[in-house]
Amino acid sequence: MRRTSFENWPCSVARTTDLLGDWWTPLVLREAFYGTRRFEDFQSELGIARATLTERLRRLVELDIMERRPYQDQPLRHEYLLTEKGEDFFGVLMAIVAWGDRWLADAAGPPVLFEHRPCGRHTHAQVVCDSCGRPLHPSDVRPRFGPGYPADRAALPRAQQRYNGP
Amino acid sequence: MRRTSFENWPCSVARTTDLLGDWWTPLVLREAFYGTRRFEDFQSELGIARATLTERLRRLVELDIMERRPYQDQPLRHEYLLTEKGEDFFGVLMAIVAWGDRWLADAAGPPVLFEHRPCGRHTHAQVVCDSCGRPLHPSDVRPRFGPGYPADRAALPRAQQRYNGP
Repeated sequence: MRRTSFENWPCSVARTTDLLGDWWTPLVLREAFYGTRRFEDFQSELGIARATLTERLRRLVELDIMERRPYQDQPLRHEYLLTEKGEDFFGVLMAIVAWGDRWLADAAGPPVLFEHRPCGRHTHAQVVCDSCGRPLHPSDVRPRFGPGYPADRAALPRAQQRYNGP
Repeated sequence: MRRTSFENWPCSVARTTDLLGDWWTPLVLREAFYGTRRFEDFQSELGIARATLTERLRRLVELDIMERRPYQDQPLRHEYLLTEKGEDFFGVLMAIVAWGDRWLADAAGPPVLFEHRPCGRHTHAQVVCDSCGRPLHPSDVRPRFGPGYPADRAALPRAQQRYNGP
């Protein structure tokens, strides 16, 4: 059964979640960031069913988030690498890690720490405004119509209230 | 069919994705950040099946991400509000929005823009190191054993290689 598709919603949360497809996908991406490249290694690290992994990797390649590249000729074997679009997803995963560390860690503390080479400290992701550098808080942020918002939907009263309000 | 549970994996990506349960959940949270509080409004804004919405809200309350609170007596009616843990998820959603805007927007541009009141500019989330303020790039970040990593698994060669390597 195909679930509801969010692909065409005028919302980047909806589009991104649609694209990811299911929760295995962020974990496949996590593995890729850890340096995993080969099908067998993704499979054994995640304990994911082979058919599911095949489908997720296929979709990530189709979406240009990962690239499938031969690394051996006889027999022919492929590995999976993050593209630029895939590499750029790192921030989302690190924001998830920071939230999970704050709210879901055991009493013992977070399972994994991340050393940030440029400063040599254990880093925790912080999500900030790219203009002023301050952390983004919900009460400080107001949604507005963007250039890609569909004109027919923009006229609806509830869209006006949401994106054109005070 | 219950899918694989990631709840006990020593990884905050896995734990967070397990907790969210499915892709409707980020969209329910998006609505909550837009100020939606009532069941009927979540339902009509998202076009989600009532049974699915009931289940997602129940789970968000159970996990202390949302709080269910009476707002009317006769008849008794409840609304759903973000808790502190829920409010703190805002950064993750804004990081998703920024990535989606960069990679999934139409030629017209992003569907929605976000005005940041403190600086008055359209903001795009940036994920930075909380120690040095620099944007987090995958090649700069190295995973290490955290205090909550299970001791029995830490001894495995592949865990040593991943979290204790150069």
